[in-house]
Amino acid sequence: MERIVIAFGGNALLRKGDSGDFETQSARAYEAFSSLGSALAEYEVVISHGNGPQVGNILLQNEFSRNVTQPMPLYSCGAMSQGLIGLALSFAYERAKYEFGLSRDISVLMTRTLVDKNDPSFTNPSKPIGPFYTEEEAAKNMKEKKWSMKEDSGRGWRRLVPSPDPIEILERKQILSLLSNGFLPVCSGGGGIPVVKSNGFYEGVDAVIDKDLASSVLASSINARRLVILTDVENAFLAYGKPEQEAIGIVNLDKITAYSESGVFAKGSMGPKITAAIRFIRSGGKEAIITSLDNARAALAGKAGTIIRP
Amino acid sequence: MERIVIAFGGNALLRKGDSGDFETQSARAYEAFSSLGSALAEYEVVISHGNGPQVGNILLQNEFSRNVTQPMPLYSCGAMSQGLIGLALSFAYERAKYEFGLSRDISVLMTRTLVDKNDPSFTNPSKPIGPFYTEEEAAKNMKEKKWSMKEDSGRGWRRLVPSPDPIEILERKQILSLLSNGFLPVCSGGGGIPVVKSNGFYEGVDAVIDKDLASSVLASSINARRLVILTDVENAFLAYGKPEQEAIGIVNLDKITAYSESGVFAKGSMGPKITAAIRFIRSGGKEAIITSLDNARAALAGKAGTIIRP
Repeated sequence: MERIVIAFGGNALLRKGDSGDFETQSARAYEAFSSLGSALAEYEVVISHGNGPQVGNILLQNEFSRNVTQPMPLYSCGAMSQGLIGLALSFAYERAKYEFGLSRDISVLMTRTLVDKNDPSFTNPSKPIGPFYTEEEAAKNMKEKKWSMKEDSGRGWRRLVPSPDPIEILERKQILSLLSNGFLPVCSGGGGIPVVKSNGFYEGVDAVIDKDLASSVLASSINARRLVILTDVENAFLAYGKPEQEAIGIVNLDKITAYSESGVFAKGSMGPKITAAIRFIRSGGKEAIITSLDNARAALAGKAGTIIRP
Repeated sequence: MERIVIAFGGNALLRKGDSGDFETQSARAYEAFSSLGSALAEYEVVISHGNGPQVGNILLQNEFSRNVTQPMPLYSCGAMSQGLIGLALSFAYERAKYEFGLSRDISVLMTRTLVDKNDPSFTNPSKPIGPFYTEEEAAKNMKEKKWSMKEDSGRGWRRLVPSPDPIEILERKQILSLLSNGFLPVCSGGGGIPVVKSNGFYEGVDAVIDKDLASSVLASSINARRLVILTDVENAFLAYGKPEQEAIGIVNLDKITAYSESGVFAKGSMGPKITAAIRFIRSGGKEAIITSLDNARAALAGKAGTIIRP
């Protein structure tokens, strides 16, 4: 059976206008599993997912309560979001399991991702995260907590954290074990909890790992044949948003690498997805797909989406 | 290799006077694993744990931020605490693994516990949880959220939630799979996320499951030979706190059942541990141990603690 990693985008749990309550997130997750439908039976699937809005809320809750209870470090908020989202995905999957007559049981695994403590992003944190602060609060956080902070277009100050490259999925063996026993693992949520190796031991580190780059490392390390990155557009585009915009369909590694190096993909959104796809193919992956939830099944059949092959 | 379930008490992560920051919790967890030491190599161990203070803080954070972000339901806060505590346990275990030359890798699994939606506790919620509210806030919560609430000895109003009996560990098969592949599973944190079956599907329910009772169900359902409940006292006692207090050592099922039925064990603390032990032995378990972390190894050798046998 073909092994594939499917990376759910943020819209698998939350869409514009959603209130963000737990039940709605779980209902969205059900829609996501439903659009995969029978594909969940045809492949040996591993699910990864983003956690942006959820970890943002947890950080907000930490900050608003900092006078009454100890805030938890960012990396541990990632672990919390894995539990929260994993639970919503479990309830949702079980409905899809019944509807599509699937046999596998879901299994949500706390997953950490190793990053290099010398990753250049640590000396140049650039990823804004969490609530907005006043200038005074920002000054205090920069002094007392050694946070990097930046004023954000008149809306207030935000914390900047590093976004280091993922190197290794620490729970790789556990994922393979669950897979080989017929479970559907949910792992590497939010890119995984970032850890560095320090004096021989793993330690959490306040950073954010791109979930598509982490999913790419995950897919390579478990020898998945395909990596499917689900997002809110059907394809990656050339000249995106311009009159001459052109959807990218089936494309080989050399061509997509050339596009990528010419800088046509937006840094914060399509860029990392393309990089994740390229890295996966370079590491021996047979196919990387970038498409929307609605087109996932057609894309797996080679009939939709951006499909990157060696 | 003998299979045992070890239920960590609250003091495995937090002690009186601890600030409760993540690093301290992780350091406490390291002490807990260290006191087990080589026992972690001699047995096929499954770890469960409490989550009282941690889920209390998460609830507090939810409440203090309810005007800026959607509070998550209690049951999903349990899932968050499993991720948080599982991460602290992972970092801690890896230090113990190195120190004691252990071979197993840890694996933190999101775990749900089935309860009966007709459990009598649902009509009589009695477990106080979360922050204190003013009378006015309490009235609002009772009306709008249908919460049960109670004034708590002049300190304010608190939410009361049901504490239903655990019936089944939903992720039992996943735990067995990880065990059979040589991992040390961490599961059923905080008694597991409470779910009921409704129209054929599992749904989260706002309740708190006693972690020792859940650990007892866990131990029985995976055919563990022994259940070890770790707490802050070396033994269960008769006439606890009185001059004639007497430590209970090795005791058989009939005798402990008689003690229990005579009401000598405190309802909120030792009572459920004794009940958990009795249920485990009645379901075929060979030995249930109640003791402190420091005495765990001696108790496993039959030389300390309260030891309940058929």
